[in-house]
Amino acid sequence: MHLSEITHPNQLHGLSIRQLEQIARQIREKHLQTVATSGGHLGPGLGVVELTLALYQTLDLDRDKVIWDVGHQAYPHKLITGRYDRFNTLRQKNGVAGYLKRCESKFDHFGAGHASTSISAGLGMALARDLKGDNFKVVAVIGDGALTGGMALEAINHAGHLPKTNLMVVLNDNEMSISPNVGAISRYLNKMRLSPPVQFLSDNLGEQVKNLPFVGEALSPEVQRVKEGMKRLAVSKVGAVFEELGFTYMGPVDGHNLEELISTFKEAHKITGPVLVHVATTKGKGYAIAEKDQVGYHAQNPFDLASGKAIPSTKPKPPSYSKVFTETLIKLAEDNPKIVAITAAMATGTGLDKFQAKLPKQYVDVGIAEQHAVTLAAGLACEGMRPVATIYSTFLQRGYDQIVHDVCIQNLPVFFCLDRAGVVGADGPTHQGMYDIAYLRCLPNMVLMAPKDEAELQRMVATGISHTSGPIALRYPRGNGYGATLMAEGWEPLPIGKAEILRHGDDILFLAYGSMVYPAMQAAELLSEHGIEATVINARFAKPLDEELILPLMQKIGKVVTLEEGCLIGGFGAAIAEAAIDANISAQVKRLGVPDILVDHATPDESLRDLGLTSAKIADEVRQNFFSQQPSVVS
Amino acid sequence: MHLSEITHPNQLHGLSIRQLEQIARQIREKHLQTVATSGGHLGPGLGVVELTLALYQTLDLDRDKVIWDVGHQAYPHKLITGRYDRFNTLRQKNGVAGYLKRCESKFDHFGAGHASTSISAGLGMALARDLKGDNFKVVAVIGDGALTGGMALEAINHAGHLPKTNLMVVLNDNEMSISPNVGAISRYLNKMRLSPPVQFLSDNLGEQVKNLPFVGEALSPEVQRVKEGMKRLAVSKVGAVFEELGFTYMGPVDGHNLEELISTFKEAHKITGPVLVHVATTKGKGYAIAEKDQVGYHAQNPFDLASGKAIPSTKPKPPSYSKVFTETLIKLAEDNPKIVAITAAMATGTGLDKFQAKLPKQYVDVGIAEQHAVTLAAGLACEGMRPVATIYSTFLQRGYDQIVHDVCIQNLPVFFCLDRAGVVGADGPTHQGMYDIAYLRCLPNMVLMAPKDEAELQRMVATGISHTSGPIALRYPRGNGYGATLMAEGWEPLPIGKAEILRHGDDILFLAYGSMVYPAMQAAELLSEHGIEATVINARFAKPLDEELILPLMQKIGKVVTLEEGCLIGGFGAAIAEAAIDANISAQVKRLGVPDILVDHATPDESLRDLGLTSAKIADEVRQNFFSQQPSVVS
Repeated sequence: MHLSEITHPNQLHGLSIRQLEQIARQIREKHLQTVATSGGHLGPGLGVVELTLALYQTLDLDRDKVIWDVGHQAYPHKLITGRYDRFNTLRQKNGVAGYLKRCESKFDHFGAGHASTSISAGLGMALARDLKGDNFKVVAVIGDGALTGGMALEAINHAGHLPKTNLMVVLNDNEMSISPNVGAISRYLNKMRLSPPVQFLSDNLGEQVKNLPFVGEALSPEVQRVKEGMKRLAVSKVGAVFEELGFTYMGPVDGHNLEELISTFKEAHKITGPVLVHVATTKGKGYAIAEKDQVGYHAQNPFDLASGKAIPSTKPKPPSYSKVFTETLIKLAEDNPKIVAITAAMATGTGLDKFQAKLPKQYVDVGIAEQHAVTLAAGLACEGMRPVATIYSTFLQRGYDQIVHDVCIQNLPVFFCLDRAGVVGADGPTHQGMYDIAYLRCLPNMVLMAPKDEAELQRMVATGISHTSGPIALRYPRGNGYGATLMAEGWEPLPIGKAEILRHGDDILFLAYGSMVYPAMQAAELLSEHGIEATVINARFAKPLDEELILPLMQKIGKVVTLEEGCLIGGFGAAIAEAAIDANISAQVKRLGVPDILVDHATPDESLRDLGLTSAKIADEVRQNFFSQQPSVVS
Repeated sequence: MHLSEITHPNQLHGLSIRQLEQIARQIREKHLQTVATSGGHLGPGLGVVELTLALYQTLDLDRDKVIWDVGHQAYPHKLITGRYDRFNTLRQKNGVAGYLKRCESKFDHFGAGHASTSISAGLGMALARDLKGDNFKVVAVIGDGALTGGMALEAINHAGHLPKTNLMVVLNDNEMSISPNVGAISRYLNKMRLSPPVQFLSDNLGEQVKNLPFVGEALSPEVQRVKEGMKRLAVSKVGAVFEELGFTYMGPVDGHNLEELISTFKEAHKITGPVLVHVATTKGKGYAIAEKDQVGYHAQNPFDLASGKAIPSTKPKPPSYSKVFTETLIKLAEDNPKIVAITAAMATGTGLDKFQAKLPKQYVDVGIAEQHAVTLAAGLACEGMRPVATIYSTFLQRGYDQIVHDVCIQNLPVFFCLDRAGVVGADGPTHQGMYDIAYLRCLPNMVLMAPKDEAELQRMVATGISHTSGPIALRYPRGNGYGATLMAEGWEPLPIGKAEILRHGDDILFLAYGSMVYPAMQAAELLSEHGIEATVINARFAKPLDEELILPLMQKIGKVVTLEEGCLIGGFGAAIAEAAIDANISAQVKRLGVPDILVDHATPDESLRDLGLTSAKIADEVRQNFFSQQPSVVS
């Protein structure tokens, strides 16, 4: 049977190990070819090919449910659940998603994108099953990296307390998050990986105990008790933490040995209550280049399969925001030992790996643990340090209460740097950085800023560091800057709450925030060609808003467009609406940004076009809204 | 020395056990008298009197830092850090706060109110200390209940990975959150409490091992290794989980034995790296009535010390919102086995303890674990259940990413019930339910509603249950209803997104949300006496907004007041501002609610008055803003 013939995972039933190995090879081939062409996650999926096949052979996928954590390791799952044919559309607009989606397949039982959710979701399904008197199996697959996320531990704490609720957790232990894991749990798992499996140890120990001189002799009850206790303890040593937390522990299992996996899963299905199967896998398995550089090949842009080298883009690009951010922060931190950069397992994504290389003492990676990251930053701030919590917009949602309770209420000077704010492209809805302006703006003491380009980003990094009177958050987009001239050092902090006038015109007022400033300027040029002259304001700060500058201009010009790469509800345009209505300004206002919808995966440019946030679309919108007698700019 | 003479905790240095016991008695006396008079947290503080005194005797509080988790157990701490004299102002406006506050005392090193933050904050301070080359001690005190919160486990995972970073965690194990704990960690701790302390066990074991027949004989290296391994394992059994996670474990220690506590703390201070001291305490210790009913005496309204009975209020009050909520939900759940009520360790606060008593199978307490609670609810919803996640407004912040990522993006029908939305009174800034409208309104698929009174609450509970097409959130205030007539059953769900006109008038339009509807009606009556006639709208839904009804009225009447018990930024009034500005409505709008400040502890009435949200203040505001020629209603 060829992989392409598998449209339902139950077709794996009855296949021999040899046949499964063949399917495994075909999955790796398709996986590699697709990612080499389209880009996407590479190492995670390659590492779980055997795990997926073995698990699915032991399940009835018409009834049983497998919940994959994060979802970036679910490409093998997708390839055997009816998505082989269109897998070449991976991460492209209207194509197969890079993560899991309930609407994409009935086998995607729970959508994902962020880490550490699968055990909670699985336990919810298991509780529902028992309440309904049903008896299907629920399996949550979770990575060792995701296990450091607090909610996964909350879920283990809960599941371990329910001895009658059947739930299998498969721990996909590849010794990595995106980067190598940090934390005691990871060290503990590593230790376990080096131990023989439980079964082996206990057998072996049995032999050893038998050989002890006192065996066979009449023992005092006390000595007997000690001996029994010793045996039990030795047996439970591997996996003791999970056993103590109420799980039956099985493993470690070689995650690339189908036979061993299948027999372990079969045994595990017989166990009542929560069971944890510890599977040791190799990230990037089967593609030597990825096995060797597991960080580099966690995810990839299109690359050449033979060499593993990225296919160079046709023209040189300006540096990414992440790069400019890190380089600026390094420069500032070299002169200021109080600066501490914090990441939650996103060293490469945020660019902080470079910071770590230069200034390891001033760098902290807390693992996938955004809550802890934020409050740790608050603790550092209490001691006069300058913590810089560098967390993607979407992941900072995980630390929201900590921002409110530990930072804003105490007015502590934590500097939040939100990478990937706005549209994120191929990663889709779970990763879109749409809500940060709204969820941060409502918090007392918080200052919010966003740069128009990478040069202003530099000044805003300096601004964040110099703002010591309370919390401040900086958002910047995914991707590359505009090629603005960068300064090597000596960035002057910006005055808090002051906007910048970039262009003067009497016909319309553009109030643009962050990444929408350049499109606004370009739209203004387009409009100028049609005789419409715009004033363009680079707001710089969404909070505090430069009302002194903005409100009189709104009143004077009377036609206003707000622009932001974020949700319209509660966002920057909403701040303008609030200020205008409070000040009783009479102006006609059009708010452009992300409406109350989820933005699906596509390229960032496609998303921005669909959202009407390109210069041409903006100009057109302005003409339709405010100058409707004029013909359209775009078709 | 009398307690009243202690103004600095270092005065405890050199006191004998006998003297400390005396101080302990005085602390309990003052604690009990104060809470009996003012109300406040009772059991937690009484349980840590000896822990506090012993710990502080081993520290130099001019340099060393103790971070108390939650803060409700910090009354003894407050009494020996300079707040004895004004302790009778506890939880009163401008008085001593019920939780910790950095601005209240230099000994309150980290503010708190929510659980599970102390280890993260402490680790941040410890990292800062080491970077600065300083060497003060950092001690984080955390309860066993708070240890089930994911962020505490994230912090342990991180701290356990830093063998050179000195950090002491004192686990105050009273076997309770507010209610008895759930979860595997709690069960594990209980097991440990029943074990002899590590020291004792290892000594004892040494004896037993010595008595084994083979001791003294020449052993094969293999048997020797097994024996050594067994000994090590047996020794590390108590506290194994913490040891495996990189902590040195000490305990369990009798938390009411000053001598044992002091000697253990002294030993613990000598240890390099993270150390966990497990202290077994009794909640309510020293007040028999509270020891017996630990749930009931976690916190108290004013009560009679001799009998422990609450001092009855002078007149009968209408039922609380929590009570009406629970009774309605019970009634609905009796007829609908799909309803599952979820709490995160707040059974009594939310009223769900009554639900548990009636329908234990449909009830889940996940412990202090809001993230898990939300995603568990999402999992239940996937299986067609009707999960009702009942979480205070302020605590739901802890599950924010899960609301976005697991519920809203997947459009799952989870029913969020946000108790304590709005001002909360004596609990102060950490507990104010101010941000929920803003942080939920920006999320796609979310529906938001709030009832005008307890009768409408009943209909909204029914509405939430019947809304199966996506998530919906209901907010309701702390405290009692208005005495509205309740129905015993048969509540008709409200049409989603439809508002209600309560009063007609041509001069001004009140758009009120939830708890502000009655004050708006009363203000309308006050204004009517002065010839100003108001239309009053009960908005019912903040999202979707009933624009069809509201916008034409705004345009027609031209003078508009929005009213909400929540933050003005991004809240209900902001929704009105957005809708009005998008529709180009010309109206003069005054938004009333909570401005961009923190609301301190006070009674709810005092807070509302200060915020200008009483009927008289509203009427006055209207007259000043819109009819300024008229004289003021209030002085």
